[in-house]
This record gives sequence, structure tokens and C-alpha cells, in this order.
Amino acid sequence: MDKKPQILHRSLVAESRLFRIESIDLRFSNGVERTYERLVPGGSGAVMMIALLDDDTFALIREYGGGVEDYTLTLPKGAVDLGESMRDACNRELQEEIGFAAREFIYLKKMSLSPSYMRGGIDVVLARDLFPSKLEGDEPEPLELVPWKFSDLPELYARDDFNEGRAIAGLALAIEYLAGRFEGAVL
Amino acid sequence: MDKKPQILHRSLVAESRLFRIESIDLRFSNGVERTYERLVPGGSGAVMMIALLDDDTFALIREYGGGVEDYTLTLPKGAVDLGESMRDACNRELQEEIGFAAREFIYLKKMSLSPSYMRGGIDVVLARDLFPSKLEGDEPEPLELVPWKFSDLPELYARDDFNEGRAIAGLALAIEYLAGRFEGAVL
Repeated sequence: MDKKPQILHRSLVAESRLFRIESIDLRFSNGVERTYERLVPGGSGAVMMIALLDDDTFALIREYGGGVEDYTLTLPKGAVDLGESMRDACNRELQEEIGFAAREFIYLKKMSLSPSYMRGGIDVVLARDLFPSKLEGDEPEPLELVPWKFSDLPELYARDDFNEGRAIAGLALAIEYLAGRFEGAVL
Repeated sequence: MDKKPQILHRSLVAESRLFRIESIDLRFSNGVERTYERLVPGGSGAVMMIALLDDDTFALIREYGGGVEDYTLTLPKGAVDLGESMRDACNRELQEEIGFAAREFIYLKKMSLSPSYMRGGIDVVLARDLFPSKLEGDEPEPLELVPWKFSDLPELYARDDFNEGRAIAGLALAIEYLAGRFEGAVL
């Protein structure tokens, strides 16, 4: 099982404006053959930020989720533009989405959305030493900034409108980092 | 912003064996119009389990991820079959993936993979009071069971081969539940 399956064939089976779907024929090391499908995102990656408004408070945004067709609370995030550094992407998204820039960015981890069905992932970054600074984004309507305290996390987890797995995960990593149990890297 | 956007038009724009992609034309309450795309999963839902092997140990599996084209560590999970209860789906997947059944299942939360781009989600369930019981699954090769201690979580978070956002999130919810800070519901 340490030996990766052999890729027999790979093809593009469907494509839309945002998504590409690849089909991949695999032969596992035990000889079993299977056809897998995966989503291949376009672009240069994505970032998600735990932005500290003070030592115990982080920034949530309320935005319309086209996938679930409802408003949800989640962490600020967005796509990295072509040629843009991860730090610049973080700082641009923060200014567009919550109206703050940051002086310090700590890289925490690359997370996969679904290792089974999706290539690519999102980079999780802690932002602190914030100051007001606004940039115009491409949102169809202004996002609402919702400050939330780490000490009130269980109430957040219990809300139906806070349900994005990656956001729960990002906060868990930030808590471990802030408690000194998990290493980050200054960007 | 409390008023949801109006759905002007909805159409299927791409389809493969596993995925369907919908395009949705929206008019936000401020009059701005946008076209969104989202993935619509097939099937009857999915479950992810934090299965307690003892009070401080949960079950990880090592499996090949077709999306990232590598072996990764994650939590046991799988699709709910047509007509199957969530509890039965959890118990079947556990027996197929780690060779244990459970006597107690606690429902924790429905998580979305991406509220922006995906409909549907995965139900997170804590399983305990486990006993050996094996069912044959549809895996192309046997999965490896990797027991992991909650006290060693920071080491797990630091591993490159443990990167699924939903798994980090599921563990965070289980920890809150076990500490009595988050309510679950017996299945």
C-alpha cells in the first residue's frame, strides 16, 4: 500500500466556467483497476484567514453561499490572483472582505477540501496586528463583518448557519498555534 | 442582506459519472445580478465518523486519495446508501473501513464542504463502545487502520499527509463534545 497506483489513462470528461472534471484510470499495486473522477480547480490557489481583531476575537463574514443557497457565517477567504504572493492575496482579501489590513501573517497549513475527489487545496493563514484599510472587492453586495470570541466557540459550532468544515478546521489550527502547540511560519 | 437573492434561472451545465454542475442566475436584494455555479452531489448524503477505540484514541484510516493522487490519513467516512438510516450507514462504513462496529452513535453536526460552490454536506458522528466486526467494502485495496491519541493531535496536524479540512473539523467538534461544551444527539 506504500506503492502508489499506476495511472493508466487520464482524460477531461466535463468542463464548465468554474470547474473541470478529470477521469483517471488507476491500477493499484494489488492489480485491482478502478476509474476515479476528480475536480480540478482553476487559478493559482486560495487562502483562508483567521484574522485577529484582538487577542480573543477573530473576524467572521456573513455572505451568501451559492452552493447552499443561503447566507452563512465563515472565515474570510478568496482566490490568489495570478502572480500574486500568498501574503499579498491574504492582505487584499482582508481589505476587500472585512475592511482591515494586517501587519503580521503566520502560515499554518495547506488543507484539502476532499483528498478523494478534489485536487488542490486552501492555505490557512493567521493574520494579526490589524488596522482599518478598505479595498473594493468583486462581491455582489457588501459582506457583514461579525466579530466572534474564541471563548464563545461552542455557541458558534452549534449554529446552523456556521457549517463550513474548513472554517472549523482553520479555527482549530489557530487555537493550537496560539496555545504554542503547533508551529506556524511567518509570511 | 437578510433577504435572499432571487433565483432568475437555473440550468445543468455539465455532468459526469459522479458530478453535476448547475449554473444559477441570481439577483441580489440590491439589484446586482450574478451567475453562480455549484456542484450538486448525487446520492443520499454522506457520513464521517470519529470512532473511539478507547477514551483517548480514535481511528484514522490511510487510503489513496484520487483527488490529490497520494495516500492520506483521514477519518472513516462514506456515502449513505439509498433507504439506509444514518446510524446504519455509520455502522456499515466502520465495519468496512476499520473492522469495528459500534454500539453508540452521537450525531454532532452537518458540515458543508463549501457553502459557496457545493450543495449538500457530510454528517459528523461520534461512534463509541466499539467491538470487532468486519464487512467487505468496495475499496480497491484494504485500508490501513491507524489509531491516534487526542493528546497527540498537534503532531497529526503537522503531518503533510493529514490535510483534509473536514477531518480536522470533525475532531475539533468531537473534542468539544467530549469536554461537555457542545451538545450531540444520540442516533
